[in-house]
Amino acid sequence: MSPEGAPAVDPGSVIAGLRDLASRTGDERGAQRLCWGPGWRAARELLGERLTAIAIEPELDEAGNLWGRLPGSDRDAPALAVGSHLDSVPDGGWLDGALGVFAGLGILEAWARSGTPPPRDIVLIDFADEEGARFGRSLFGSSALAGTLDPAELASLRDHDGNPIGDVLAADGVDLARAPEAGRRIGSIGAYLELHIEQGPVLAGEEVSCAAVSGCAGVERHLLTFSGQTSHSGTTPMDARRDAGLAAVESALEIERIAVRHGGVGTTGRIELSPGVVTAVAGRAELSVDLRHPEAEHLADMLSEALAAAASVADARRCVFGGGPVWRIAPIPFDRDLVDGAAGSCAAAGGRAAPIASGALHDAAEIARRVPTAMIFCASRDGISHAKEEDSSEADLTAAIEAFGALAAVAVAG
Amino acid sequence: MSPEGAPAVDPGSVIAGLRDLASRTGDERGAQRLCWGPGWRAARELLGERLTAIAIEPELDEAGNLWGRLPGSDRDAPALAVGSHLDSVPDGGWLDGALGVFAGLGILEAWARSGTPPPRDIVLIDFADEEGARFGRSLFGSSALAGTLDPAELASLRDHDGNPIGDVLAADGVDLARAPEAGRRIGSIGAYLELHIEQGPVLAGEEVSCAAVSGCAGVERHLLTFSGQTSHSGTTPMDARRDAGLAAVESALEIERIAVRHGGVGTTGRIELSPGVVTAVAGRAELSVDLRHPEAEHLADMLSEALAAAASVADARRCVFGGGPVWRIAPIPFDRDLVDGAAGSCAAAGGRAAPIASGALHDAAEIARRVPTAMIFCASRDGISHAKEEDSSEADLTAAIEAFGALAAVAVAG
Repeated sequence: MSPEGAPAVDPGSVIAGLRDLASRTGDERGAQRLCWGPGWRAARELLGERLTAIAIEPELDEAGNLWGRLPGSDRDAPALAVGSHLDSVPDGGWLDGALGVFAGLGILEAWARSGTPPPRDIVLIDFADEEGARFGRSLFGSSALAGTLDPAELASLRDHDGNPIGDVLAADGVDLARAPEAGRRIGSIGAYLELHIEQGPVLAGEEVSCAAVSGCAGVERHLLTFSGQTSHSGTTPMDARRDAGLAAVESALEIERIAVRHGGVGTTGRIELSPGVVTAVAGRAELSVDLRHPEAEHLADMLSEALAAAASVADARRCVFGGGPVWRIAPIPFDRDLVDGAAGSCAAAGGRAAPIASGALHDAAEIARRVPTAMIFCASRDGISHAKEEDSSEADLTAAIEAFGALAAVAVAG
Repeated sequence: MSPEGAPAVDPGSVIAGLRDLASRTGDERGAQRLCWGPGWRAARELLGERLTAIAIEPELDEAGNLWGRLPGSDRDAPALAVGSHLDSVPDGGWLDGALGVFAGLGILEAWARSGTPPPRDIVLIDFADEEGARFGRSLFGSSALAGTLDPAELASLRDHDGNPIGDVLAADGVDLARAPEAGRRIGSIGAYLELHIEQGPVLAGEEVSCAAVSGCAGVERHLLTFSGQTSHSGTTPMDARRDAGLAAVESALEIERIAVRHGGVGTTGRIELSPGVVTAVAGRAELSVDLRHPEAEHLADMLSEALAAAASVADARRCVFGGGPVWRIAPIPFDRDLVDGAAGSCAAAGGRAAPIASGALHDAAEIARRVPTAMIFCASRDGISHAKEEDSSEADLTAAIEAFGALAAVAVAG
């Protein structure tokens, strides 16, 4: 029992559940729980078995999110929601998403076995298609719940094999056009908590097990284009060149400097030179940049500085600079009180006392738009995720699950 | 008549021949004289007609080079060879190669119409497959003549449609295995002269019509590889990255600085990042570099400095540097006396007094290995070549053809 009278979560049982999941839905290349596919369905079947064992009937909302509701003593109080996602990228890791779902399940199981109902309903939500690995649209189910999903923007998407998104979702009982109706459920939730692996190297580098998450960084994703003049690599003197490729690479280094200066991250993950042959000065180049910062002001400054630097570099090389935004999302801060509570429970479990910002997006970022939300990160070994090497030590998992349980105990007491 | 008693070449007739060639073998996308194809055969048919009209029977050697021999008064003296190539890249320019063939033809025609035989034989050579646009092996015919062609290295090549080189050459009567036998003819040649467009912006920038060429720059073509660690663009702090992409782009800028410092050229025409997506720090990168300099010592220094810079950049970013040479050729200087003569005839025609180095390779580079050789460049409008926009003004063409005729007049008097 916690000071709030909540039963303790059993980390060993949570970890055993995760190992069971991995053995049922993984292979030698990693986790195979691509959303709307057989491995993902098998994962949900396992989750359903576990819920049924504690007399909870799993149900699906209009967006394909799976809900398990443990009734509390006050049925009128807004519920505490816990959860994450069971879907994975292809050849993914065993913990990404699944940790939060099984930790949430552990909370429900602890209460169910205690014989005492929680003060309010606790709902476990397994969000549909967090990864977006099949249709390129991540946070599908959580955005439907948060009211930010527009089916019209997704209607023409097809998967790698050419299957339309509408047909694929229909096979799992989801009508894309009606998915936003899942949003009617948001009013029943009073707070949302999510445990997730960090998927980055910060906690592992500091050798701490877990940390509260202050919020999700905003993202500015832009395509930068440079047009110069294709010319012969042998006959064009250096001072006669209009090398669009060098304008792009010089911009990539400027972007790195800008990100460091602002304490954010800036990534040039893709550069394409045209014609792209060793015998030609590139007449055209494209660069894809991803800028992230937890503070909106810094993010805006990073973007304007990056665009100005690229324009200036292009100008100096007599190239024409262009391009535009590909995708952007404002920083999403989590609920200050819940974050403080999460930080306290992490510190008590031997984790980090101060919160860290999340550079990646999570279902919590969508839910935070509507209800008070907090997250806890568990350290990722070597910071690796989305790969079969993804792992966290048993000690770190245990501490993170305990911290998450303690946070939930406070939140459910409300 | 020139001071040497040689008849003057008629630039107008040469240019008219080139226009005739363009109308017969070009389309709205440019010159279509890809070697071993219908446009190229049509070009040779036109050349054959012109030779036959002056009683010269064109013949092919074992490498598919077309020869036209105008007998001189001293049949035992080594012949003066003039020529270039009729083949073009796909969607090429009207002058690349063709200018030298038709200017050489103009010399034969002038002598034939003068009624007087030249002091020695003059041979016109239209080299086969200078461009290498079909099988990726340039200077095919001229290397066979120079004795540097190894059929075994080419035997497995296929064109874009999968046709083996042996089958394609056989359709034009060339047995790949026997192509080196063309080299037996080299002993009959005493000197080789070639007129070609510059294919670069130097002469156009200086507003001069033509220049002697001192030789062809050497080339070092290398593949540089960088291995770091692929990681999430949102969750990996800047100081925790092993960004192979940034190691590559930083190397590209170093290569530019090195080329400028040595007065050569250095080109990064291709960069590939892996996995090459906006959401991932690149764990691997490849860069193709092409370094050129007319002096061997400078070229060697450029290469060693470029490799050292790339290794140092990789080291600073905790990446592993690798790669190796793809192709290399030493600088090839032309014959000093002939270059001096070419410079004098260019100056007399209103062109540049001092020779320039060629950054591109030409048939002359192969022939120069065996016999005294010189080239003259005609200014290229805007430096553009290998494109339908390739052009030279009528005035520049006229001056270049006159300079070439004057050089040939001196050489044939030899």
